[in-house]
Amino acid sequence: MSSLSEIQAAAARIAGHTRKTPLLSSPFLDQIAGRPIFVKPECLQHSGSFKFRGAWSAISNLSMDQRRAGVIAFSSGNHAQGVAMAAAHHNCSAIIVMPSDAPEIKRTNTQALGAEVVLYDRETEDREAVTAALNPDGARTLIAPFNNHDVIAGQGTIGLEIAVQSAELGIDSASVLIPCGGGGLTSGVALALEQHPGLTVHPVEPEGFDDVARSLVSGKPEINQRLSGSICDAILTPSPGELTFPILNRLCSEGIVIPEEDCLRAMALAFERLRIVIEPGGAIALAAALFHPDKIAGDTVIAVASGGNVGAEMFTQALKNMKA
Amino acid sequence: MSSLSEIQAAAARIAGHTRKTPLLSSPFLDQIAGRPIFVKPECLQHSGSFKFRGAWSAISNLSMDQRRAGVIAFSSGNHAQGVAMAAAHHNCSAIIVMPSDAPEIKRTNTQALGAEVVLYDRETEDREAVTAALNPDGARTLIAPFNNHDVIAGQGTIGLEIAVQSAELGIDSASVLIPCGGGGLTSGVALALEQHPGLTVHPVEPEGFDDVARSLVSGKPEINQRLSGSICDAILTPSPGELTFPILNRLCSEGIVIPEEDCLRAMALAFERLRIVIEPGGAIALAAALFHPDKIAGDTVIAVASGGNVGAEMFTQALKNMKA
Repeated sequence: MSSLSEIQAAAARIAGHTRKTPLLSSPFLDQIAGRPIFVKPECLQHSGSFKFRGAWSAISNLSMDQRRAGVIAFSSGNHAQGVAMAAAHHNCSAIIVMPSDAPEIKRTNTQALGAEVVLYDRETEDREAVTAALNPDGARTLIAPFNNHDVIAGQGTIGLEIAVQSAELGIDSASVLIPCGGGGLTSGVALALEQHPGLTVHPVEPEGFDDVARSLVSGKPEINQRLSGSICDAILTPSPGELTFPILNRLCSEGIVIPEEDCLRAMALAFERLRIVIEPGGAIALAAALFHPDKIAGDTVIAVASGGNVGAEMFTQALKNMKA
Repeated sequence: MSSLSEIQAAAARIAGHTRKTPLLSSPFLDQIAGRPIFVKPECLQHSGSFKFRGAWSAISNLSMDQRRAGVIAFSSGNHAQGVAMAAAHHNCSAIIVMPSDAPEIKRTNTQALGAEVVLYDRETEDREAVTAALNPDGARTLIAPFNNHDVIAGQGTIGLEIAVQSAELGIDSASVLIPCGGGGLTSGVALALEQHPGLTVHPVEPEGFDDVARSLVSGKPEINQRLSGSICDAILTPSPGELTFPILNRLCSEGIVIPEEDCLRAMALAFERLRIVIEPGGAIALAAALFHPDKIAGDTVIAVASGGNVGAEMFTQALKNMKA
């Protein structure tokens, strides 16, 4: 069972190996949103997303025998790079199963970081089945992207940092907005902030992929109709996980669902006002804060920018958006 | 006379008001450079460049009467925004004299931050004369961009942070590369690192605007032939300052001079590998580290990325460069 003490143990394991990302802000963004906005830029994390935290947390907790046998993972791209980088640091071989439509930059980075990449078709193949077939004797430890206690605990370290940093800024009360796929990041942060009732955690999803928002309403795991076809590739998962859903259901405030096009506008403003690079899925919490103020109660918002692995073409498209 | 104790006093004044920027790195950049590279991303600083440190240091050291009378400054754009933002926080009015060819984003930002902007022609008018004419009775305090002890001390706080952060990383010895215009940042950092002989400070300039490199060779302030016509708008100054040159001459190692086009390639790699936005002039130290390894002695490099105020058009041009 994931818990605050697991997150604290993960924080001790990752200390000195992950970056403690700052909280960024700009008066120009506050003006657009009509309230103070702080951005936690996990795009600045090693491997370009928060996934490095969970990957390091999980792999650093393996025995020497397990490390020698290697790890295996499936991922749309950010968990892939996080696992590849953390595995390489632990002298541990890694096989990563990735969808064939993952952004090229994520695939080539994963390979360049030393992992073996195996592609599958997101619409016709089941990634867990492909992964199992590649590890028939189960020798390799599966590092699941969100249904893994050590991974959830690693992502939760972001919540511990938010608690400290918001206190330093004198923030007692804020909506913490999180880009949400399978819920590993959201559930970890929600657990880490359980003792901070002023900080309410909201998953943010694109329209058409709002499984978590609907699950929070119905009280049971809901499933998305589609599994591809969004620019928010990082957060397209069929449904919340077995481990993450009970945490989300117990601790999260309502989900926020917005059009994916808003992510491009948020990317452009993050470029201009914070000088950071965010990918579409990683920009959705900031997009909600900037362009959907009516969907957010209270005053201050803390938006996690979960990743920045985006190709030049998509980023250029976002910047064109800005000038229009 | 600028000194380490002035920098320490400035550090106390700016504490809690400026961001302590991290040291970023990527195995991909290390591979290109053939050595470990760390980047100090001052593009993440308030107002998008290191200039906010010096501006806050200077304005926070004014008396209440001086603040009431307001400040005046001349700047190609980054000092402008830093002064505008720091002045607004101190309820202090600001007039900023800017060249008519400054990037539009820098001019509009300066105005949006509450300063009055007056334009001049970089080739035909003298900015100090224009500034003096706007302040005939001398009531407003001039916040010079680099010839000001409090400004130099504020920029020097970056050196204090580099000393602490490099020690945390176990770095005893490194070349510290700094984008250099009038030398305020370079001289401040050199002073801050004077007691750290393993950390050698090198100004970096674009070809055709290498006044500081030539001054370090000749031992007297040299002057640039041209004052405009480079994409590195942030670091085009006629010559090192009266206050900065003696410090540069006493403490800096040799200057590094590279083609300005390399800045666009460095911007593209910083986008892809560090997920930060750097402007051309701010990228020149990183460009030297990445593409001119033969001009650097020793092993580790720490490159300051001094600013990130760049428009979408120029940034898109840099990204096109990447794909070529």
